[in-house]
Amino acid sequence: MSPSSHPVTVLTPTLSAARSASLALAAAPTEVKNKALVAIATALRANVAAIVDANGLDLAAGATNGLSTGLLDRLRLDQARVEALAVAVLEVALLTDPVGQIVRGSSLPNGIKISQVRVPFGVVGVIYEARPNVTVDIAALALKSGNAAVLRGGSAAENSNRVLVGLIQDALASVGLPAESVQTIDQFGREGATLLMRARGGIDVLIPRGSANLINTVVSESTVPVIETGAGVVHIFLDDSATQEWAVEIVHNSKVQRPSVCNAVETLLVHENAAARLLPAVLNRLAASGVTIHADERARGFFPDALVATEEDWATEYMSLDLAVAVVDSLDDAIGHIRRYSTGHTESIITNDLANAERFLNEVDSAAVMVNASTRFTDGGEFGFGAEVGISTQKLHARGPMGLSELTSTKWIVRGSGQVRA
Amino acid sequence: MSPSSHPVTVLTPTLSAARSASLALAAAPTEVKNKALVAIATALRANVAAIVDANGLDLAAGATNGLSTGLLDRLRLDQARVEALAVAVLEVALLTDPVGQIVRGSSLPNGIKISQVRVPFGVVGVIYEARPNVTVDIAALALKSGNAAVLRGGSAAENSNRVLVGLIQDALASVGLPAESVQTIDQFGREGATLLMRARGGIDVLIPRGSANLINTVVSESTVPVIETGAGVVHIFLDDSATQEWAVEIVHNSKVQRPSVCNAVETLLVHENAAARLLPAVLNRLAASGVTIHADERARGFFPDALVATEEDWATEYMSLDLAVAVVDSLDDAIGHIRRYSTGHTESIITNDLANAERFLNEVDSAAVMVNASTRFTDGGEFGFGAEVGISTQKLHARGPMGLSELTSTKWIVRGSGQVRA
Repeated sequence: MSPSSHPVTVLTPTLSAARSASLALAAAPTEVKNKALVAIATALRANVAAIVDANGLDLAAGATNGLSTGLLDRLRLDQARVEALAVAVLEVALLTDPVGQIVRGSSLPNGIKISQVRVPFGVVGVIYEARPNVTVDIAALALKSGNAAVLRGGSAAENSNRVLVGLIQDALASVGLPAESVQTIDQFGREGATLLMRARGGIDVLIPRGSANLINTVVSESTVPVIETGAGVVHIFLDDSATQEWAVEIVHNSKVQRPSVCNAVETLLVHENAAARLLPAVLNRLAASGVTIHADERARGFFPDALVATEEDWATEYMSLDLAVAVVDSLDDAIGHIRRYSTGHTESIITNDLANAERFLNEVDSAAVMVNASTRFTDGGEFGFGAEVGISTQKLHARGPMGLSELTSTKWIVRGSGQVRA
Repeated sequence: MSPSSHPVTVLTPTLSAARSASLALAAAPTEVKNKALVAIATALRANVAAIVDANGLDLAAGATNGLSTGLLDRLRLDQARVEALAVAVLEVALLTDPVGQIVRGSSLPNGIKISQVRVPFGVVGVIYEARPNVTVDIAALALKSGNAAVLRGGSAAENSNRVLVGLIQDALASVGLPAESVQTIDQFGREGATLLMRARGGIDVLIPRGSANLINTVVSESTVPVIETGAGVVHIFLDDSATQEWAVEIVHNSKVQRPSVCNAVETLLVHENAAARLLPAVLNRLAASGVTIHADERARGFFPDALVATEEDWATEYMSLDLAVAVVDSLDDAIGHIRRYSTGHTESIITNDLANAERFLNEVDSAAVMVNASTRFTDGGEFGFGAEVGISTQKLHARGPMGLSELTSTKWIVRGSGQVRA
């Protein structure tokens, strides 16, 4: 991103209000935070028309500006989607509050008692694009975890976000919490992202949600600590001993059930001894659902209609009804291919061989590694965390689906009675 | 730091050897890692003379280059210090291996079993200066936690580090682990730090240890995720109700017991109602131990020999026998002062008032917050973690003393039997 023409100080009033709000939120009882969430859900339901109208302005501008059909779909809020957002907010109210949980603790030999307690980060910054639903989701998750949120939701959703943030702020104020607990900086346009990335000390953690390009920019340029919610070049490996029915159904589910998300499979690897037995059935089932196959030479031997896969296919997150397919010589080759091309999100082996299953689980270094299960299960809701902040593909702090506790830090509470160090 | 004149690719052979070594280390049983640690300790003891000789070259060069007495002391390795290093390595062998620990897990309603398991980061980079003991400490901690280490120990300790890394590599090889599990890049001089900061993908986490200046540079410039082991502008607040004996002994211990470390107190705040009762005794005891007092006007009223504190004193980590002292109107003022000037390391309140103690613990947002205890207790050894990687002052991933488990990430293991997502 280009250097900002705004000085970083233009954010000072926003960040300083966010810091004050974060102190109130950190001290707010769960009951009050839950009342705010209920008030937000009520406000969303009571103001569907205003939300949909504002969203209509964004959709019209997006159409004029030539946004793709996919982006326009993400941008759209209709009555059903607003209702789904309200329900999601109420679900966050039902989740356990992580703040104040004691992670571990002990009594030291000198009588001092130490305990490690979950505390909010403070101020969370989120950078995303053309997804007004994220505005509501993140506001609810940040609120429940005691964090103030500063949102850069992108100019494409500016009208929608303004109305949504206004409703959220009124709901917060109605239960006595600071309205500035949730703020948007869309007024600074594209430069808002750059300003957030430079706001070290003002923003405690920055979460980019969106394209690989957006995430890479934030990771490279931010001086604020970042949690990467990353891209998924997700692999399934069909081992020699894979059950055919599982292979067919798991690959189909992993690709077709929701192809546009990060836990959908993008590359299928097949053991050469199993290719003749499995590939025709697996690929025919996919093709019948409209999947385009990009195959290496050996795989094309079993499915001549496939396009010829190029080097680029192995590194591509299609997010569409496309699948790259290769035949490999061995489990070692499959692991080698995954080490080279995986983004470290999710990989699954379909096998009945215990030793191979264990080797795959141990040697593939991804946020989630699976045996005989659909890659679509890497998801906070499926894992039982409730609503999801995103899926982290970094190794620091959080890895895999992030729930509310991943939006917290900890501090050590030390209780003494005059002890000094010898 | 200035842009590197070396292309990032000069590190490729080092990073690629480190990555290979990390795969072997991740799979190495605890028993083998412990054998390597014993072999390292044995090698240190058997080669004291060679280590001390190499260190002599660094000390001579340091003296010629005008290194300060403090830096020369940190740089020095004599027989006793080498023995202490060997003992520290053996202590790491006694610590519980974090790799493979199951953090949490559950059975999902569909029968899938998920578990979150500790895994090594992979390759850890460490940037430090003129402290050859860190070379051995970090090598031992990285090895036990299954991580390969790439060390930039600085040209001032180049000869010492070369000998130490050579001994460590031979010890690793003697038990069948890759010698490249621990490597130094001191041959690239000052630019080594810049190269590590640009090695995204090659280095999984970067840990700067040293001056605030070094740490700030790494935090701002690194594209690799960083764990900050930070500076400590540490505060003690003497509340109205503080027991005099505790006030005197805790402040003295926190300042004098080891003034050059990050958990030593740097600023003393005193409630105005307690100043007359406590300050003369507290400050006389400090002065008798050679502490220079930098006091605000009100505090000087009780200790006229004090220097006049300036704005800069409140933000200074002296790391020496100096202490800034201010009288405040209330607990609120003390918390306000701490919010403004603290680096978020450690703060302690001395009080007998339960409500004030709880407010201080809740409202001061530092890695460690204490009641009636010396700030010197913020320490991995004191907390029972064994050897310490450093004390994190960031909120992401680790906060406070970091033990072995803070050198690990996690991954999710998912075991199914053909499940697909509905």
